[in-house]
Amino acid sequence: MPTSEIIAVGSELLTPLRLDTNSLYITRRLNDIGILVQRKWVVGDEPASLEEALRIAMRRVSTVLITGGLGPTEDDITRKVAAHVLDRQLIYNEEIAQKLRERFARVGRALAENNLRQALVPMGAIILPNSVGTAPGLWLEEGKKKIVLLPGPPREMKRMLDEHVIPRLASATRGEPILRRVIKLAGIPESTADERIAPIYLGYPKIQTTILAAPGQIEVHLTAVKSIHPQAEYDLDRLQDQIEEALGDKVFSTEDKTLEEVVGIFLGMRQGTLAVAESCTGGLIAKRLTDVPGSSQYFNGGVVTYSDQSKIDLLGVDPEQLRQHGAVSAVVAEQMADGVRRRFGSTFGLSATGIAGPSGGSEEKPVGLVFLGWSDSAHCHSERIQFNGDRELVRQFAAQNALNMARRNLV
Amino acid sequence: MPTSEIIAVGSELLTPLRLDTNSLYITRRLNDIGILVQRKWVVGDEPASLEEALRIAMRRVSTVLITGGLGPTEDDITRKVAAHVLDRQLIYNEEIAQKLRERFARVGRALAENNLRQALVPMGAIILPNSVGTAPGLWLEEGKKKIVLLPGPPREMKRMLDEHVIPRLASATRGEPILRRVIKLAGIPESTADERIAPIYLGYPKIQTTILAAPGQIEVHLTAVKSIHPQAEYDLDRLQDQIEEALGDKVFSTEDKTLEEVVGIFLGMRQGTLAVAESCTGGLIAKRLTDVPGSSQYFNGGVVTYSDQSKIDLLGVDPEQLRQHGAVSAVVAEQMADGVRRRFGSTFGLSATGIAGPSGGSEEKPVGLVFLGWSDSAHCHSERIQFNGDRELVRQFAAQNALNMARRNLV
Repeated sequence: MPTSEIIAVGSELLTPLRLDTNSLYITRRLNDIGILVQRKWVVGDEPASLEEALRIAMRRVSTVLITGGLGPTEDDITRKVAAHVLDRQLIYNEEIAQKLRERFARVGRALAENNLRQALVPMGAIILPNSVGTAPGLWLEEGKKKIVLLPGPPREMKRMLDEHVIPRLASATRGEPILRRVIKLAGIPESTADERIAPIYLGYPKIQTTILAAPGQIEVHLTAVKSIHPQAEYDLDRLQDQIEEALGDKVFSTEDKTLEEVVGIFLGMRQGTLAVAESCTGGLIAKRLTDVPGSSQYFNGGVVTYSDQSKIDLLGVDPEQLRQHGAVSAVVAEQMADGVRRRFGSTFGLSATGIAGPSGGSEEKPVGLVFLGWSDSAHCHSERIQFNGDRELVRQFAAQNALNMARRNLV
Repeated sequence: MPTSEIIAVGSELLTPLRLDTNSLYITRRLNDIGILVQRKWVVGDEPASLEEALRIAMRRVSTVLITGGLGPTEDDITRKVAAHVLDRQLIYNEEIAQKLRERFARVGRALAENNLRQALVPMGAIILPNSVGTAPGLWLEEGKKKIVLLPGPPREMKRMLDEHVIPRLASATRGEPILRRVIKLAGIPESTADERIAPIYLGYPKIQTTILAAPGQIEVHLTAVKSIHPQAEYDLDRLQDQIEEALGDKVFSTEDKTLEEVVGIFLGMRQGTLAVAESCTGGLIAKRLTDVPGSSQYFNGGVVTYSDQSKIDLLGVDPEQLRQHGAVSAVVAEQMADGVRRRFGSTFGLSATGIAGPSGGSEEKPVGLVFLGWSDSAHCHSERIQFNGDRELVRQFAAQNALNMARRNLV
């Protein structure tokens, strides 16, 4: 299987402020054409360090991708180091210089002398056009090794990778795509999910199974490579079916949809509309529902009732019950869901009320206690859940579980 | 200045699914005690690749930190490779074994044979206790070089780093902290900010100035090291003062506060309360305000009015004006802000109505057009802003600018 290493260049990537995220996108696209990433590096704007990285990477893999360090300043070392390692001269490329002049002229700026550094390329390099920035990329070959230099800004890097690098690599390497299935779950802890499915996936040693956990959400990723596993597609189908069967309605998507998208799809199928009443989640549920383009078709709106009085005034919660049971209670959750449904004239109402912390908890009602409510024209019910974690985590858990409650009630 | 390299171990970190984020935290803590990070690596669970990385890193820097690969399975290679590179035997440590047995007994689980792999340590290693997990860390010295092995899970790694590694490194290396100042801005584009302050910070070549941009927010980071710049503190103070003066009320924090925290502080000072009415931002403004612990002191709540009818019903927007000017208009923004203030009985009202996209735009009102409204008992006004970007970006810009509008009106 063809292999690669990725080197990110830039001293800012060695501070606590910035992370190299380009490599994730590059890895996905390389995997798509069957190239594995074997190692990643982050080096500063220091020629010796980049030189060492490039020499070592070239010894081990067939393709080395370098991002960053292609700008016009003295700090931009990538072109120079690559030329040195490959023992080639840097030559002035009039075509690049001309494009730079045109680009600067279009925006009415003068071309500074140092911008012309970007027109210096190692002998024999193929120039990769940059359709959204100034720095062109470079494609170099040395024997069977390929060295690809890409700009650091993600927008420029992605565009160039997709348009010019992946097609070239795909035809050169003949790698086979890494096949990937993603099964998303809600309402089940990671350990329980793993207990249920481990006996299944252990029966497929040639498929790599990875379990990723986020607050209130588990993703099961199945990957396989056809060239080393000819039955890969068939086995992936079977394994996926068996996992789905074992997990039942905990599975909310096998098509990489978000939970809020799935809720939207179910609302569309039932031609229903939804309104939400939030206390502890403070707008997060509404925010997630409206992250989905076109959500105005089924989402009428919501109310964030952070104070007791607003629960009474805006949602018609009974003051007597509120006093007796407290704002964090089953009855208030149900009245909030029912109130917001009526207030917005929607088919369904969803609510969350709880104690996100850090303060406000008691022995009877500790931080992390949340009641979720659901209402339609016929009935109303609630769920009591105790979460562990800090304020942010409790809010994320609560929103995720509320959306999952909506999903289960809409199925 | 003492230097380090960080090696993250784990094949999952070479997939498109996961990023090594541990190194950011490690870098911050190392910088605090004056140790620079010179290179970062990500290697898979493959002994030859880790061995090469460790050998090369040890040649170049005084401290090498390795995260991950300390678990109990065959894939966990870090202990073995470190012992091999330092040419030391792995010996069985009864103290670790005993702690593992106790830990498993506490949760009522039997200790599997392979868990005892975690009790194998290279000769001469100092054991770093893991207070929140099973894998202990290891501290190794070879001449003046230090090699530190840390567990991969961030919670365990951070705790161990803070409790056992940083104190040891600080006393061993006598590094001086890297001094850091952060100035946060809103309501100004990156290029304008840089134009105004570049002439200032270029006068301080020994201070490193970094500008980071997020939607609607700019951060100016100033860093300096006292040992190579004895006047560092004095110069940082002067530079910060001059930058603050040049940027005026665009600066919203010099104490690393978020914009929503600053709005909360101003509301507290004025003993006022706030309510928000959101259309295009769909709950994001309320969500951000309630991210702040204690926000129930000044945040009464909000309404997400996604439909025209709900703007009329819940906020008292005039149907005639709504029809005439459309939901995305100055008059509707103002009526939303005023309506939500009255509805919640709060001192101030804030609103956002706009076209987040991808659809819904027109020539007259394109995607990205947003009106923000502000209301108090005496008056009401609005701002019209045109943003560029996709749905998510427009929503983030709109929420950030709305919070900044609140800040400016509360100053």
